[in-house]
Amino acid sequence: MAVTDKKDKEVIQKLESVGAALLKQIDKKEDPQIELPVRSLNNIYFDKKSKTIKLGDKTSMRNFLNVAHTRKFMQSVLVAAEIKKVIEEEATVSIRDLYYALKHTIDGTTENTFEEQGESDPIIEDIEASTNLLREELHLAASSKGVVTGDLKIRDGKDTIDLTKMGSGGWGVPSNVEPERIEFKDVNAEYVLFIEKDAVWKRFNEDQFWRKNKCIIVTGRGQPSRAERRLVQRLNHEYELPVYALMDADPWGMYIYSVIKQGSISLSYSEEKLACPDTKYIGLSTQDVETYKIPKEVTIKLNSLDVKRLNEMASYEWFKKKEWQDEFANMKQKAVKLELEALSKKGIRFITEEYLPDKIKRKDFLP
Amino acid sequence: MAVTDKKDKEVIQKLESVGAALLKQIDKKEDPQIELPVRSLNNIYFDKKSKTIKLGDKTSMRNFLNVAHTRKFMQSVLVAAEIKKVIEEEATVSIRDLYYALKHTIDGTTENTFEEQGESDPIIEDIEASTNLLREELHLAASSKGVVTGDLKIRDGKDTIDLTKMGSGGWGVPSNVEPERIEFKDVNAEYVLFIEKDAVWKRFNEDQFWRKNKCIIVTGRGQPSRAERRLVQRLNHEYELPVYALMDADPWGMYIYSVIKQGSISLSYSEEKLACPDTKYIGLSTQDVETYKIPKEVTIKLNSLDVKRLNEMASYEWFKKKEWQDEFANMKQKAVKLELEALSKKGIRFITEEYLPDKIKRKDFLP
Repeated sequence: MAVTDKKDKEVIQKLESVGAALLKQIDKKEDPQIELPVRSLNNIYFDKKSKTIKLGDKTSMRNFLNVAHTRKFMQSVLVAAEIKKVIEEEATVSIRDLYYALKHTIDGTTENTFEEQGESDPIIEDIEASTNLLREELHLAASSKGVVTGDLKIRDGKDTIDLTKMGSGGWGVPSNVEPERIEFKDVNAEYVLFIEKDAVWKRFNEDQFWRKNKCIIVTGRGQPSRAERRLVQRLNHEYELPVYALMDADPWGMYIYSVIKQGSISLSYSEEKLACPDTKYIGLSTQDVETYKIPKEVTIKLNSLDVKRLNEMASYEWFKKKEWQDEFANMKQKAVKLELEALSKKGIRFITEEYLPDKIKRKDFLP
Repeated sequence: MAVTDKKDKEVIQKLESVGAALLKQIDKKEDPQIELPVRSLNNIYFDKKSKTIKLGDKTSMRNFLNVAHTRKFMQSVLVAAEIKKVIEEEATVSIRDLYYALKHTIDGTTENTFEEQGESDPIIEDIEASTNLLREELHLAASSKGVVTGDLKIRDGKDTIDLTKMGSGGWGVPSNVEPERIEFKDVNAEYVLFIEKDAVWKRFNEDQFWRKNKCIIVTGRGQPSRAERRLVQRLNHEYELPVYALMDADPWGMYIYSVIKQGSISLSYSEEKLACPDTKYIGLSTQDVETYKIPKEVTIKLNSLDVKRLNEMASYEWFKKKEWQDEFANMKQKAVKLELEALSKKGIRFITEEYLPDKIKRKDFLP
């Protein structure tokens, strides 16, 4: 099948050039080898300029004739070839599909190409990192579980989806939200609100918060998937929409915020296209407990694991700012954490009608 | 606020009648008491007529003046009153919101109304069971995480959502899909396909399977939430659409199927409105391995936990049919299980273009 999409052509070209280089080495009777970026911790750093977690420039060689590399070399070539096939068939497959599609017993041996998905996943990451392409650009579907509504339209293939007309549901964010697939239209929203919890998102959606406040509300239902992060990053980059994160006031909520903002170590090789350093932490903070007179009964005691995580996070470079150090210290001193739902104590719609509008008006957020 | 919705009025009336009965008892200087259905295992049975799991007619009394009951009695009245308030404010709240809204230290004591959500959740279930109302009808939002597309439109409040125009995403199923909220329009689909896994749903959605095959595709992303089950049950009841379940060929997939079909013990008091006994199990089955010549390499060895679960399931009344007993025996004898993604071995679109259409054509399903 002839590939017509420009981006797809570019991706196939990149993959073919890897194969061509190998063929050339074989023709020259050299040991075929692939150069790959090192993805271990010692090649990962926080880039102060882009304010995201990044992969350094250390690389390593994977050689066919090195018995310690041979199996992985074979797997790398298989995965690259299968990705090319998937793109040519104009399909998208999950990384689990890919694993199964490639798993077979090698002719004349009892050896399988892959024994488990734990073998094929790192190879995919190698290819992403070495081609500097996103998984989605390789037509591999990562899971996505979030929903979005708000003042904009989405153009997706032949369909135009009006995100102001999703009823009490939302548009389920697909795996691939790259510009080649998803186009934004009629963006009247003035900011994006990234909400940690689905139940809280539902409160904002039921109250049509996005309509009254001209915004877009997204949830990743806990730790967001790549797709939700990429969607928000694109809205920030392409429309300069500010992004506010609304999380539980606990180490887990604050960690999710940091992933949205500067990325994670495990996805360091893709963070350039996923992290959104403009994100601001709008709440909850331990300061809110006093500001909004939240009764002590609905706070939760910090446990020893929480304190351990807070101490770890306080040492991260991207949490070195005074405001965050103060917040961590304050949380430890008060020894309480707070869930978003705790605001229900102040009234069913306190969070949508008072808390959030007030925080935005006062620009009361953490950096 | 005056409640205008007919259903809401009916619900408030039910709650008020509970309160009125208590007041009457107090006026008569009797010990106030509430009659509640027993929700323990010895009052749960498989109803052969409706083919669903049901709650029996055993009840118990909760008395204010019985010190063993007083705390729960107080909690029951608090929860009922809060639900009434939520309905009157025309809001929907999560059960976590409800817990926080009601949590406080009782005046003049050091005792809290609730110590944890584990105390308020069973009270909500008591109220559901005793009023014979769904949680959704009480304006309590259960989590929902599934997506749906297909040949129909959804009318939700003022919005009409065309489920043939969702692009590569889907409509995120909201918590409440009761007829008062969600209306179906232009249902041209001829059946519903309930898909266990999100990644497989994405394959079916990308291939627009629902268009070529005039159907509706739903996933609950693993064990479906109440909302996805209720949505499918309504489509089955109101439009007589057959329902097919597409699951992994393993004890977990088959168990999820059984929940969709006849319900679960933990939700026995609501299964009348959630279970969908017409559901058929279209795949995967261990027989498929031979029928479709699926290579041995992509099957997975059954482990001892799997065998234990199979033996348990084989003893359930609703799995007593010969076809299921044969399937369990066959699975144990072959000692393999199979994931949906394993079909990728036969080609990227084998599952949507060959496997499923063939199974439906041959009516090859388990009861």
